[in-house]
This record gives sequence, C-alpha cells and structure tokens, in this order.
Amino acid sequence: MRPQNIIEKKRDGKALSDAEIASFIDGVCTGAWEDYQITALVMAMFINGLTTNEQNVITREMLHSGKVMDFSDIDAPKADKHSTGGVGDKTSLIIAPLAASCGIAVPMISGRGLGHTGGTLDKLESIKGYNVNLSTERFRHVVKSCGFAMTGQTESIAPADKKIYALRDATATVPYIPLIVASIMSKKLAEGLDALILDVKTGLGAFMSRFEDSVKLAEALVMTGKEFGVRTEAVITSMDQPLGQFVGNSHEVYECVKILRNEMSETARETLDLSMDLTARMLVLTGLADDASEARNILRAKHESGEALERFRANIALQGGDPSVCDNPEKLIERDLVVLDLRAESGGYVSAIDALKVGEVVVSLGGGRLKASDDIDPCVGYECVAKIGDSVNEGDILGRVSCRTLDQAAQAEAALRKAYSISSSRAESPALIRDSVG
Amino acid sequence: MRPQNIIEKKRDGKALSDAEIASFIDGVCTGAWEDYQITALVMAMFINGLTTNEQNVITREMLHSGKVMDFSDIDAPKADKHSTGGVGDKTSLIIAPLAASCGIAVPMISGRGLGHTGGTLDKLESIKGYNVNLSTERFRHVVKSCGFAMTGQTESIAPADKKIYALRDATATVPYIPLIVASIMSKKLAEGLDALILDVKTGLGAFMSRFEDSVKLAEALVMTGKEFGVRTEAVITSMDQPLGQFVGNSHEVYECVKILRNEMSETARETLDLSMDLTARMLVLTGLADDASEARNILRAKHESGEALERFRANIALQGGDPSVCDNPEKLIERDLVVLDLRAESGGYVSAIDALKVGEVVVSLGGGRLKASDDIDPCVGYECVAKIGDSVNEGDILGRVSCRTLDQAAQAEAALRKAYSISSSRAESPALIRDSVG
Repeated sequence: MRPQNIIEKKRDGKALSDAEIASFIDGVCTGAWEDYQITALVMAMFINGLTTNEQNVITREMLHSGKVMDFSDIDAPKADKHSTGGVGDKTSLIIAPLAASCGIAVPMISGRGLGHTGGTLDKLESIKGYNVNLSTERFRHVVKSCGFAMTGQTESIAPADKKIYALRDATATVPYIPLIVASIMSKKLAEGLDALILDVKTGLGAFMSRFEDSVKLAEALVMTGKEFGVRTEAVITSMDQPLGQFVGNSHEVYECVKILRNEMSETARETLDLSMDLTARMLVLTGLADDASEARNILRAKHESGEALERFRANIALQGGDPSVCDNPEKLIERDLVVLDLRAESGGYVSAIDALKVGEVVVSLGGGRLKASDDIDPCVGYECVAKIGDSVNEGDILGRVSCRTLDQAAQAEAALRKAYSISSSRAESPALIRDSVG
Repeated sequence: MRPQNIIEKKRDGKALSDAEIASFIDGVCTGAWEDYQITALVMAMFINGLTTNEQNVITREMLHSGKVMDFSDIDAPKADKHSTGGVGDKTSLIIAPLAASCGIAVPMISGRGLGHTGGTLDKLESIKGYNVNLSTERFRHVVKSCGFAMTGQTESIAPADKKIYALRDATATVPYIPLIVASIMSKKLAEGLDALILDVKTGLGAFMSRFEDSVKLAEALVMTGKEFGVRTEAVITSMDQPLGQFVGNSHEVYECVKILRNEMSETARETLDLSMDLTARMLVLTGLADDASEARNILRAKHESGEALERFRANIALQGGDPSVCDNPEKLIERDLVVLDLRAESGGYVSAIDALKVGEVVVSLGGGRLKASDDIDPCVGYECVAKIGDSVNEGDILGRVSCRTLDQAAQAEAALRKAYSISSSRAESPALIRDSVG
C-alpha cells in the first residue's frame, strides 16, 4: 500500500481500514513512511477525525509495534496508575509502594517532564544513584522483588508511539483525544495489566484545561482499556492549583518520603488523600478489597505501619539509589540554594493559585524542560505554603522559591505574584476529585 | 515565530497573516521548517482552505524566495504560455518559435514529465545535444538572440515551490487549486512577463478531469496573474483524447518539426490549430495584433514563410542541439524499434480514446516517469492514426506502438485496446477549445 493512497483517503474524510492502519504503523517502525508523510496523515486525522474503530486499531497496532510484557509468572494482580500530568503531581511515588505493600504488582513505565508538567523519572533521579533505565529483565526482577518498579519507555515498548509523539509535538497535533488515547494506552497496555487507574487532570495546570474535554478523554481512555480486557477506571481531578506542598523534583520526592514516614505537613496531606483514593480504587478493581471503605482501611494500616515506606526503601535499593533518604529525607534538599519567601501584599483569602504559572516558573528556574533534550536542575523548586481557601494577613508567607541566584529569585517572585489571587470574601478549597468514569 | 503556532492556527481553520506566511516560506528555504512541519501545514491548508489573500501572499513569497528575471533591456513584449499538462501536448515547441517570429520575447521555464503527462524538457532533450540547463546569463542571451529560450527551473527560480511541490507529491496534497496556482504562478511570474496564456487541460488525460474544476483553476490562475500586473488569459482545452498525432518524446518533436515545415499529417493539424489559437491570444494580449483574426493572419504568414522554423533552428543551435533535425526530421525517429499496429477489431466510429490510458502505456514503455528520479527512453512512443469521430473498418489501423521488445508491444497493445471505444453511431470530433477566461 502506498502512503499517498492512505493519506489521500483520510484527507478526504474517509475511515481507514484495519489493514491501512496496520500498514501505516508498520511503515512508521520500518521507515517505509517518511516523517513528512506521517505528519501529513496525522494532521488529516486531527482535522477530519477518527472513528472509535480506527482509534482502537491504532492503539492495537502501536501496542504490538513493540513488546507486551508477560508477568503471568507473578502470582499477584498487576495494576498501574497513569496521570495525564500536572504541577506538583507526585502521587506515583506514594501509590506504587502503597499498592505493592497490599500485594499488587506495579510495573510502572513512566515519562519525563515536558513543559510545565513534571515527570516521575526526573523526580526519581533526584535520589542519588537511582536508575530509571532498567532492562526488561531487571525491570521484571525489581517488580518481583519489591512489588513495583519504575522505568522509562525503552525502545521495545510501543516504538511507533515514541516516534509519532515526537512528530506530533513538533506539528501542533498533540491535543486530539483519539491520538492521546492511542499514545497513553499503547504504552500502558504493554505493561500486561489486570487493572489500570487513570488520573485525568483538569483545570489551569492540566494538559486539557476544560472540564468537558477532560471527561471526554477519561471516557475514551476507559473505553479503550476495557476494549483490551483491562479493568479500567478514570478519575478527573483538579489541577487548578499545584497538588500538595512542593513543585520541583527533589522537593517532591522529599514530600513523598515525609508522607510515607507519616510526618507530612498540612499542605502535603492533599497528596496523600489523592494517592489513597487512587490506590483504593486499584484495590477494589483487582478484588483485593470489596469496596472503597475496606480499601481505605487496608491502606491506612499499610501507611501507618510503615510498610509502604519499607517498599519504597527496598525499591530504591534495587534500582541503585541511596535508600537512606527514607531515614533522612532532608538529604534530598540541596543546602546551597537561594530561598526567597513570597509574601502576601494584602490580607484576605487565597482564591486562586494558577498551577500553569507556577509550573512555568519552576521550568524557568531550570527545574523542567521546554524541549525534550533540555537538562534539568533537580534541586530548584517552589513550596506552596498557603493554598486556596486559606486566610492570610498582609506580609504572610504565600510560598517559598528555592533557586540558584538572587536574580532568578526576583524574577520568580514577580511571576509567582501573578499566579495568586487574594479576595476579601471567603474562598472554598476546591474539591480535588471532580468526577470519575468506570 | 514558531512553526507549531502557525500550523496550529491553520489546523484550527484560521487565516494566516502575511507575516506568518512569509515566515513559513522563509523557513522552507532556510531549513528552519522541517519537512514534516511543512507537510503538516500543507495538509491543514488543503483541508481547511486558504483565502484569496493567503493564496496571493503564498504566491508572492514563493516568487520572491528566488530571483525574478528582468528583461527590461529587451525592447520587445515578454510573454509565455503554460499548460497544466496533457498527453501528446507539445504546443510549446510550436508556440515559442511562432511567437518569437512575430517579435515576442519568450523566456520559457519548463518542467519534466511526471506520471502520464509529458514535459517539454524531456521532449527537447530528444534533440541530440540540446541543453535544457541554461545558466541565467545564457538563458538571457538565447532569448535575446533568437527570441525564445527553454530551460528548467534552476535553484534560483522559486526554490520554495520546488521543495514544497516535491513534498506535496509524496503526501497527497497536490490537487488543491490555491496551492496549484501558487506553484505555477510563482514560477511564471519569475519570468518577468508582460503577458501569459494558460492552457488549462480538462478531461480524462488532464490533471483536473472535471470541467468545473478546470474552470475554477483557470479563473484562479487568471485572477492571480492580473493581481501581479501580468495580462493573463486562460483557455480550457480538451484532453479527452491525446493531442495531435504522437505521444512520446522524440516522436512529438518530430511532429512539431513537420508542422513547422508545413508538412504535417491530418492528425497533426490539431496541434497546429491549438498552437495558433494560443499564440494568437498572445499577440492580442501584447498588442501586436488588434484582434484574433489579424493575429491569425500574421501567424499564418510566419508559419508558411518558414520564419517560425528558422527561429526553432536558431534556438536549437544556441542551446547546443543539432539543428539539422529541422532539415531532416526523420533523424529524430530511432530506426531500431519494434513497431506494432493496433488494428480495429470491429468497424464503426471511434467514439473515445482515453488519453490517460494512452499516457500510462507510454510511461510503461519507458517514455515517462512514475517518480521524479526515473530515467526515460525518449525513443518509444505511440502514434494516433485514427482519432475520435473517424470511421474505421475492422482491421484498420487505429494507432502504432513504437517500443523496444515484442513483449512490451504485446502488453501495450492489450492496454491500448482498452483505451478505444468504437460505436456504431456517428461520433463527433470533440471541440478542442472548451472555454476561455480572460
């Protein structure tokens, strides 16, 4: 089949056959399709649309463009959580050890940060020595040994997705639900899961800011997961303000270790609450709990007993990192930083903290990437001291910037100030969980 | 300006600003736009459309991506003819010397054949030694010396068009009128013309087979020419059957020399008629004749006196070719060929000769290209002996294939047979000129 004929068909708004889609994805992998032909077809898909069948076939072909893992020798339910990405969104580091401590195997393939949203791999690398480039064999070994492992997308996992995603990023074709679904699900389905929880972020700091779009994405993800025989549930959660206490790689790991040690601050409690909720759903989906209430009781016990922390410690050791951060989380925080307090210029209630702006400030400090090849500085970050709904007096601390120079600090302060709204009337703390699809 | 932002705007159906289009075309030339970004934008243009202003700005930017010739030192009106391409369409070789013999300077930049349609450069190269890769200086010199020159699109002429066209060809985005107009006109306007005649083909063997589409293309071309200050007229001509007597490079040059020598066959007369009509319009547009009737009288005299033939002879010598073909056109026909007669299987009237199928047969014999890098065999070809409207008896010769092997001849015969329809009721010879836009 000539690429031109397939492109022409979609250009004219017709649905592609299964064989045509297979030929396309195969051509992406073999190089028979040139990059400029891939992007022409993807643009035609974006504008003219894809049917549900086309979406499923693209997902299936991208999935089978690489290896699908087989954990059938592990006698435990396999489950994972995937988030569409947010600011301060570090729940993977709580959910994986919590779920593992309950007897779930979590083979988590994660990504890096891009733009204002962070990535689990970058966070983990702020633990000295932690290796996120595991071979398939080592990945299996770590999952078997401590119940979870966290690694990057290797060449063998959905290689077609890797190539297409990079081209979409360069050609303004990322925000289209069927292609987002195919990209996410081709990777997650490669993990050989029984159950999958999707955390679809919505609001200013989310990839999809409009609630209706987030719901549509959640529905499409759940439908696709079920189509492929995986028990799937999606939760739509607020990303209007940064999640929890910290934004920035090492700071977020610090927050998670403190939570696992049950020494968390008030602002970090939100991170635990969301992690608990998502893990509870995982327990119910895998049949390890009958309902959410039972699941929460199990999780509370695993958290308070320190079993989840011990899973994290074991995982760090297995992945080559320094497990002593579990005893002394302060080691994660670089001492040699400029720390500047952002103070309220007037009293009132914090009514908004624009997560997008906060995320962009942390990127500008070097804590994130504008393009995939950028290096990052894991040490810089921002602490949200006051959150939406808190009452503050003039001069109270709203947050705290950690960066490298006084100039950076001054610029960050000016930009962060624009992220905050202080109102005279009482503002409610926003509901974290907005909706769920299951 | 980031390519992504410009692509996104057109993806969402918005009109691009002049500055955005300039940035795009500039990026095509400098390489700041990757090929896969160019094709994504072009697909979005194809599906979501371009306004008249966008079309004009793309044309202008593509034109100014290269050199615009200045023939102001030549004290003669500058004019050219451009055809959208057909099967057996060799009128350039008659029009250029005819117009030159009337005092028009014709700086003709031509193309090569692709698919079932032929190209002027390939035809000319069947004259031994003829050079179609003239430097700008040599091109000017030849125009000054004999009134016309014929050369290929150099790197300095509309380089952005050259790159974009090749990408469109590989991504099913060729047949979109505003992009066709920009591609044709950016090259033709670079010739620094006073007047331009466009021969827009319509029918089975044309690039645009539907008459309404051909009219739309003609209108858009004329509008653009006028927008840029060039007197422009378009003629919509039939490409339902091959034009004139021969299809195939050296055979077509032979037909033209025979016409210029006024020794043409009955089937070749059609080629002269169309050439005369188009050149007459050129004379009227440039003010060298008051009306079509006067123009035809001038042209008939130039043809019959042999002055047009002498122009062709002078041009061949100036472009390095063997001018003796003007005295002995039989030299153009390779002796060592397999020649097979296609004979009517039943008597009646020839009611159709599918020009597309005939063109494809000549390509399959090696006389044309499927892709731009293919080599061609200038010697193979096909002669149309009977034309639409002719009455034939069973066993009469319909046409004559010239090729390299008996196998080829047999395959060509089978394919050509499908191109012919013989009906029992009288069929009319179709009108060559269907419409005009001026």
